[in-house]
Order: sequence, then C-alpha cells, then structure tokens
Amino acid sequence: MKKILLSHGSGGEETQKLIKNLFLKHFSNEILNKLEDASILNISGKIAFTTDAFTVSPIFFKGGDIGKLAVAGTVNDLAVMGAKPRYMSLSFLIEEGLPFEDLEKIVKSISEEAKKNGVLIATGDTKVVPRGQVDKLFIATSGIGEVVRSGLSAHNLQEGDVIVVSGTVGDHGACILAEREGMEFDIPIESDCKSLWKMIEKLLNSEVEIHAMRDATRGGLAGVLNEWAEQSGVEIEIEEEKIPVREAVKGLCELLGFEPTHLANEGMVVIAVKEKDAEKLLEVLHSTEEGKNASIIGRVTKKGSPKVVITTPYGVKRIMEPPAGELLPRIC
Amino acid sequence: MKKILLSHGSGGEETQKLIKNLFLKHFSNEILNKLEDASILNISGKIAFTTDAFTVSPIFFKGGDIGKLAVAGTVNDLAVMGAKPRYMSLSFLIEEGLPFEDLEKIVKSISEEAKKNGVLIATGDTKVVPRGQVDKLFIATSGIGEVVRSGLSAHNLQEGDVIVVSGTVGDHGACILAEREGMEFDIPIESDCKSLWKMIEKLLNSEVEIHAMRDATRGGLAGVLNEWAEQSGVEIEIEEEKIPVREAVKGLCELLGFEPTHLANEGMVVIAVKEKDAEKLLEVLHSTEEGKNASIIGRVTKKGSPKVVITTPYGVKRIMEPPAGELLPRIC
Repeated sequence: MKKILLSHGSGGEETQKLIKNLFLKHFSNEILNKLEDASILNISGKIAFTTDAFTVSPIFFKGGDIGKLAVAGTVNDLAVMGAKPRYMSLSFLIEEGLPFEDLEKIVKSISEEAKKNGVLIATGDTKVVPRGQVDKLFIATSGIGEVVRSGLSAHNLQEGDVIVVSGTVGDHGACILAEREGMEFDIPIESDCKSLWKMIEKLLNSEVEIHAMRDATRGGLAGVLNEWAEQSGVEIEIEEEKIPVREAVKGLCELLGFEPTHLANEGMVVIAVKEKDAEKLLEVLHSTEEGKNASIIGRVTKKGSPKVVITTPYGVKRIMEPPAGELLPRIC
Repeated sequence: MKKILLSHGSGGEETQKLIKNLFLKHFSNEILNKLEDASILNISGKIAFTTDAFTVSPIFFKGGDIGKLAVAGTVNDLAVMGAKPRYMSLSFLIEEGLPFEDLEKIVKSISEEAKKNGVLIATGDTKVVPRGQVDKLFIATSGIGEVVRSGLSAHNLQEGDVIVVSGTVGDHGACILAEREGMEFDIPIESDCKSLWKMIEKLLNSEVEIHAMRDATRGGLAGVLNEWAEQSGVEIEIEEEKIPVREAVKGLCELLGFEPTHLANEGMVVIAVKEKDAEKLLEVLHSTEEGKNASIIGRVTKKGSPKVVITTPYGVKRIMEPPAGELLPRIC
C-alpha cells in the first residue's frame, strides 16, 4: 500500500505530484488551481473569519471522519456568526507513513462536505513530519464567510431570552469516548458531526430575532452557557429534564461518570432567541432534518452576576459548572 | 516551572484562563477580544488569502523562533501577491508539558512581528495533545491581505524578464541544518527569517513592472524557478556565480553535500521583472535593509518547454533540477 513519505512534504517534485494527483484532483476550482502563494478572492463588505485545528483520535469514527469534521466545524463557526460560508483554507500535518488510501478518503470527505455547503477550498499547505512527531494526521483550517445577518454575539443575551438547542446533547463526545474505550451498544452511538449552514440559513431568512448562536463543541453545552453568562453578564436557568439526550449517551455517561452537558457536539447549536420568537424558531428548526430534535431548555432570568442554574426534575436548583480539568483530549 | 497541561486545551475553565492570561495579554485588539466563534472584519475590494503550517525544529534558532517564522511566512506569502497584510489567524498545536515560559516567548515574538507589519491577530484556536502525539509545538496560520497591486502571478513570466533575488540564498535552511547537527562556525549561520512587507511595499509603490514574486521557502530558489518555468511555460537561465551565497552557507553545503539553491529561505524573495525595469528594481531593493544584498541572477530566455538552465563560471550549462527526495524535514 502506498504511504505518505517525508519527501511528499519537502516542497520539491513529490510535493508537486501530491498536490496535483490528490488535492487538485478532489478540490479543483479556478482559485486553487492557480497554485499561488496566496489566493485572490473577490469579496467585500463585512466578512467573518475563523480558524480551528482538528486533532480528533481516531481519525475515522461512526458518523464521520477528521475531514468531514474539519469542514463542518469551520462552516458552523461561520454560520453561527450569521455568515454564509464561502472559502476555506486547509493545512495538513501528516505523520510519515500514513497510508495514502486513508488520506484520500479524508480528502474525499472534505470535498463532499465542502460542496454541500457551496464552500471553495481556496488555499492549502501540507507538512509531513517524521514518524512519532505527530499522531497520524492533524488538519488546521480557516474559513471566510459573507455576513448576511449582523449582531449575533455572545455579548448580546437579553433578560427573558429563551435558550434552545438544535439537537440532542453530547453525541460527538460520547461517540469518540465509546470508540476509544472499545464499547459496543445495541444502537451504536454516532457522532452528530454535520454542517449546519442549510438549517441556519433558514433561520436567518426567517423573521426570528436571534441574539446569540454558538455550536457546542469542546466544553459542550455547559461550556457555551457559562461563556454566555460571563460575556453578557446574565443568569441563565436550564431545566434538566428538557435537555434532549439520547438513551445510549445517558447510559455511557452514567457508566463512565461524565455529564452529557460537558461532552462535545459537532452538529448542534445553542441559540438565545427573543422570547416572543421562541415558538417560531422551534417551528423553523423542526422543519429541517438537522433541527428535528430541537428543544427549548431554559431562559435568561436576569441581568447580574453571571451564573448558570440547572433545575432538576424534583425542583432542586444547582449550579451548572463550566467544564474543568482534562475531560477528553483530542475530541475534535 | 509552569507547564501546559491537557486541561488548557479542553475548552473549559483552564482554556479560558490561558486565553485571557496569555493570548489576549499579548495580542489584545478590538476584534480578537470579543472571543466569538468567528471574527467580523470590514474589508473591501480584492483580498489575498493564504495558509501555512509551521513545524520547524528546533523551535528556537539563531535569528528567530517558530513564532516569528509563522508571522513572517504568512506576511511574505501575502506580500508577494501584491497584498498588504491585514489579519492573521493562529492555531496552536501544543504538546502536553511544553514549558509555559517557552510558549510565552513565542507568543511575544508573534506579537512583535505582527505589530511591525500592522497585522492584527483576528482569531485563534488552541489544542493541547497528550505527550508524544505532537513534537513540542506546531503553529498553523492563515492570513488575509488587501490587494494593492494585481497581476503578480507564477503564470506571468515573459520572455526577456530579468530574475532577481532580494538577498543571499539558503540562509534559513543552512541555519536549521547547523543547529540540528550541532555545528559551530566562526561567524554563526543565522536564519534570514524576517517579514518583507516594508521592502515589498516600496517596490509596489515604485513604477517597476514586476511580473512575478515568490518567497523561496521550502524547495528553495531551485523550487521557485522550476515551478515558474512550469507554470509560465518558459526557459530560465541562471548564472551560478551571480547567486549570492554566504561563505559559511557555502562551506556547510560542501561539507554536507547540499545545494544552497535547494535550501529554504524565510526572508528572501525571487522576482521576475520586465527587463527595462531591472536596474530600477535593484536600486529600490538596495535602498532597503532587507534588500541590501539583492542581485540579478539570470533571465527568462524563451517561451517553450519549461526548463531552468544554470551556467557555471566556466561557461558549462547544466539543468538546475527541482529539489527531490527528503531534503530536510521540519525546516519551516
């Protein structure tokens, strides 16, 4: 089986071949094909700009792979800021010896996921490092989007806002955890890894007044809510029984002592919406495949000292702590 | 001594602290400080967009470090496309256990080098991976610039164009090589790692008709010239004795069997300029600190089958091969 060699990253003949026979084969577009040091784009007005590095292990998992994840993660970071994803960059960090076949599978995933979203791969870079100096494959991306709705911000939560999640909580984290522990379930736990631009585009085209939106990746739902409370200076109250969690995810969490709200999602957003528009928002979400499990889970109760409170089914209130400690390295 | 822990990358409390106490401390600006999933930028007209991953080993070397290199590399990729560097993203991939002090030194380098160029760090990401799964520190960047001169392109070389290098050849590669081999010289070999925007801005403001410009990083001078010959479909002829190479770099290459033209630079560009403007170009370059060693090294002799020919001091002609094989991994 062909493998990636150090020479593929040395900037010489073999690098040129890898670019032509792999990257341009799958990503071909007028901008990338020029192979300049920087690509020239025509875009103006307000743009959104984001970056992310993907180090997930294993690189193939139920529901996706590191390539699909890299596109979905980048697209979602742009979409939650009200931006239509347009261009992406890709930096590959490859361990010498990675099977060419694995790399090609991942490149194909990237290409498919990018096409679904109308995103062009505009520029890229490839480094190959000696065996043992990186684990298989990391991908760093950046993304550029066109802002179609301004004002979405973590600093923008208002008293009375309703908090909505667009899907079940903790699926990606639970999937990676199960894969690493070698655990099998009757209904396998699948990552929710997916691009949410189509769903979010529908929301942005609706009249719904959204104040903030964020995809709940590393740090999970608890991470997003605590950051929001902090950045907007508000108290948020969540009803535990309204948080949608798959049975298998619940089971895994009980077994291993995790909180579903601390586990990463890779295809779910949290939304703070003006109270009067909450039902309308839910309606739009439910009309999409990606948002069919959307639920109202709580509200912003007041301005003041930042805090997230969770009410149990028995009416007991406790603080929803932000995640701390090691959690799960290489989750995304 | 404080070290970077896995928890610094988990997206929870410790990540927030690292962001506030390290990254925002040094990179603080209105855009970054908002800490949104994507940053909103106001930009108009044509933009240049580039990405690069930096894996250089050692991370500190004579003349720079991986941080300075990351900014210079990104700035130079934008500048050679005629773009004024404006914004950068940074993705840090950190090995658990990296001394905090090392990371802070590098963050300071980045901050200084970015300020010199008027570049804002607009967005970032940090991943910490378990010991042994990445070597110390990799940095992936992307950059956005405003195009101030269009038409510079590797596809744009014309018959008669004069080929100029803005400085001595092979310095960065030779420096890394010497550091890794533990070799000491009377005059230490320093990397040429530096941002070239100020120098290039002067060129762009002059009346000089530049057809192509590229920084000779991985693959070195031979890599750039061969790619240009290929992409523009031209034959290029270089006079060996006109290529400026430092004595120590020459010595090292003879000792270890390398070609200076295959070694990376990180602060030198190759320029193809219309013949009538070559002297004027040299004058502008010589008026800058970064370009004081600039030299005319050859010319585009004809359209036709892509080829780079080098003439030795004895008049013998041979092909200047593109670099091939492993060369030097983790050079940049």
